[in-house]
Amino acid sequence: MANVIALLTDFGIADTYVGVMKGVMLGVHPTARFVDIAHDIQPQSVRQAALALWNSYRYFPDGTVFLIVVDPGVGSQRLPIGVQAGTYTFIAPDNGVISYALQDLKEYTAVALTNPDYHRELVSHSFHGRDIFAPAAAHIAKGVPLTDLGPIQEDLFILPYPQIHVRDRSIAGEITHIDRFGNIITSIGKLLRVDDSRILLKPVSSDRTVRLKFVQNAIIKIFDHTIHGIGRAYYESPRGHLMAKIDSNGYLELAINQGSAAERTGAMIGDEVVLTMPDT
Amino acid sequence: MANVIALLTDFGIADTYVGVMKGVMLGVHPTARFVDIAHDIQPQSVRQAALALWNSYRYFPDGTVFLIVVDPGVGSQRLPIGVQAGTYTFIAPDNGVISYALQDLKEYTAVALTNPDYHRELVSHSFHGRDIFAPAAAHIAKGVPLTDLGPIQEDLFILPYPQIHVRDRSIAGEITHIDRFGNIITSIGKLLRVDDSRILLKPVSSDRTVRLKFVQNAIIKIFDHTIHGIGRAYYESPRGHLMAKIDSNGYLELAINQGSAAERTGAMIGDEVVLTMPDT
Amino acid sequence: MANVIALLTDFGIADTYVGVMKGVMLGVHPTARFVDIAHDIQPQSVRQAALALWNSYRYFPDGTVFLIVVDPGVGSQRLPIGVQAGTYTFIAPDNGVISYALQDLKEYTAVALTNPDYHRELVSHSFHGRDIFAPAAAHIAKGVPLTDLGPIQEDLFILPYPQIHVRDRSIAGEITHIDRFGNIITSIGKLLRVDDSRILLKPVSSDRTVRLKFVQNAIIKIFDHTIHGIGRAYYESPRGHLMAKIDSNGYLELAINQGSAAERTGAMIGDEVVLTMPDT
Repeated sequence: MANVIALLTDFGIADTYVGVMKGVMLGVHPTARFVDIAHDIQPQSVRQAALALWNSYRYFPDGTVFLIVVDPGVGSQRLPIGVQAGTYTFIAPDNGVISYALQDLKEYTAVALTNPDYHRELVSHSFHGRDIFAPAAAHIAKGVPLTDLGPIQEDLFILPYPQIHVRDRSIAGEITHIDRFGNIITSIGKLLRVDDSRILLKPVSSDRTVRLKFVQNAIIKIFDHTIHGIGRAYYESPRGHLMAKIDSNGYLELAINQGSAAERTGAMIGDEVVLTMPDT
Repeated sequence: MANVIALLTDFGIADTYVGVMKGVMLGVHPTARFVDIAHDIQPQSVRQAALALWNSYRYFPDGTVFLIVVDPGVGSQRLPIGVQAGTYTFIAPDNGVISYALQDLKEYTAVALTNPDYHRELVSHSFHGRDIFAPAAAHIAKGVPLTDLGPIQEDLFILPYPQIHVRDRSIAGEITHIDRFGNIITSIGKLLRVDDSRILLKPVSSDRTVRLKFVQNAIIKIFDHTIHGIGRAYYESPRGHLMAKIDSNGYLELAINQGSAAERTGAMIGDEVVLTMPDT
Repeated sequence: MANVIALLTDFGIADTYVGVMKGVMLGVHPTARFVDIAHDIQPQSVRQAALALWNSYRYFPDGTVFLIVVDPGVGSQRLPIGVQAGTYTFIAPDNGVISYALQDLKEYTAVALTNPDYHRELVSHSFHGRDIFAPAAAHIAKGVPLTDLGPIQEDLFILPYPQIHVRDRSIAGEITHIDRFGNIITSIGKLLRVDDSRILLKPVSSDRTVRLKFVQNAIIKIFDHTIHGIGRAYYESPRGHLMAKIDSNGYLELAINQGSAAERTGAMIGDEVVLTMPDT
């Protein structure tokens, strides 16, 4: 019996929504253990949540149930779904929020969460997190087979991947996240190997593998800022200098040692970053 | 033995106050499970906390102990109290913060938490959350009878209910909450039944039951904004249109599908909303 | 077997960093219990974290493992360390973040967390919280002896104490924290005894014990504000009046009953506060 339920929502923590979902789940499954991945997803930003899930789910133990509620279509015809992939189960609206994680896991079984036996008695039109998703997550974590919760769902909504364009000598990507430290995360990745002289990147939306030789000669551009070389760690760069490195999930990241790259550049999510490989 | 302790405070989470209370509770009751309802209650807003508790407590499992610390009178003569109602126990200052929840539960036993055996050894003048309330919650959750913690307390402080005025053809209420999405929650409720043609409301501070027939003809006014009809779900309304619906706890709510009603109207907590029922 | 892991970081909660560390820890130690002390430490402020730990660790139960990740030098030569002191274990970078707590505990055993058997398989250059610190905390909580995690480390980095200058008739301290309520905490403390007529203070960076007689005659100055006397509790002072009291950890605090002393005075962390004792 699994008992870890990991939560990812756009509910924030100033309101009582997250606490109420946990209360509901403990009523179903008194020994559930909750881990908050994040609740400050920008309201109704399905894509930000999809990226956050993608970059975090793999660090959770086997059997974890992920409860993801970023649901701008609540109350409409979009289906609530449960998806089993490997040992993980994802409970979410069918709006693409789990599609990036599913691309890694490939094989999965999905159901529509339509069996009212696993809903709260009264289902509201605006808080399916409490009335449908939380009870489903708790029942799955308690050991109810996924297929008891509703009929098999063949087609799931797929979110377009973050943009990346691989050209002959360059990769153009976009900013996918800016973290609390002002570090700028891009769609250019993922890292497969790094050594002193080269970094091997596998762009996420392409089968092409790009080998960046002579990393110290790579050129990264964002607006009118130019960075020479890809470093390994923040401390390698002098304080206050804009630098590039590979982030802890394998993406190209722009950062400032003990400073904010986002503040310096004025960059926002969606802005373009171009990496150019010099002749070798 | 209960082991769920649900916390509601105005301590925020930037300071160490909440973590310290949990540390103290685990010292008393090592298998306690904590659920955070919210800690971002506006500092010292007893009423906001009372509403948050009222709208959330019922979703928690039997035996839950609620630890509520919003306590502008800390160190003064206001009593720390413990109140058992049904299977729930509420630990809080006697300032009305639990009075909305108690009105539902009706029958209760209250004690003053004055027995020093259940306080921390040294009780400060400014952090009773750590020194009195947290130990009390942990001891109760561990199975200590409430009446061991102090003498029976007959009269509890009651907070005035949110304003609602029922007139012949209209209900005037006030805004009680604005959530993260900019949804505006009013004191007009609670919903007893909804079907296609009518909504039955029972105002919280009145015995009168108001039957709103022909819901599509109802008129809701806030400042110079007029809304026609009460919908069911956000998605029914076109993007960007101010709409009215019944929220997930049964109150009249003003919202914008994928937008912020609070931003649009400039409404703040306490502002008036009037619902007028047309002739039928 | 201990199972409480208390977390203190500057990761914030908008990103997925904290959730990922908890996922990693549950993979190692499935029955670990997490308590968040705080995650909103100002980015890379080792000193703010050191103070937060110092004021909170003692309220946690025996056997607690503290996981502190405020790590501006991540990826550099600064060592990751594990320190056992009494029944507590502290897992942190060796940058002084645990040095205030250690001064209380005095006797300790420290190791460098260099044994790769207790790291994640791949260690990134920028997220040692996930790859080194979280696994170490989970293994310790699960019962692995500290000395299995790496070699004994003799010298630890010590952070200078908050400034305090004791002169003949006055103590000059600095502001070390401003809490959510706008209460101003100073480095002047700690309180050993308080009764109606005197407060005994033991400055933290001095062996001198200062006895403040006739507390009602003490004079506290911050900028051009003067406060007469040291009170016991917020409510003793009229609303809107700047007052001085001893905070719940034993430090001199400036506060306004149901208001914000920080807003009133414009004070910031590091600013000077002077307490003068009158002739007796």
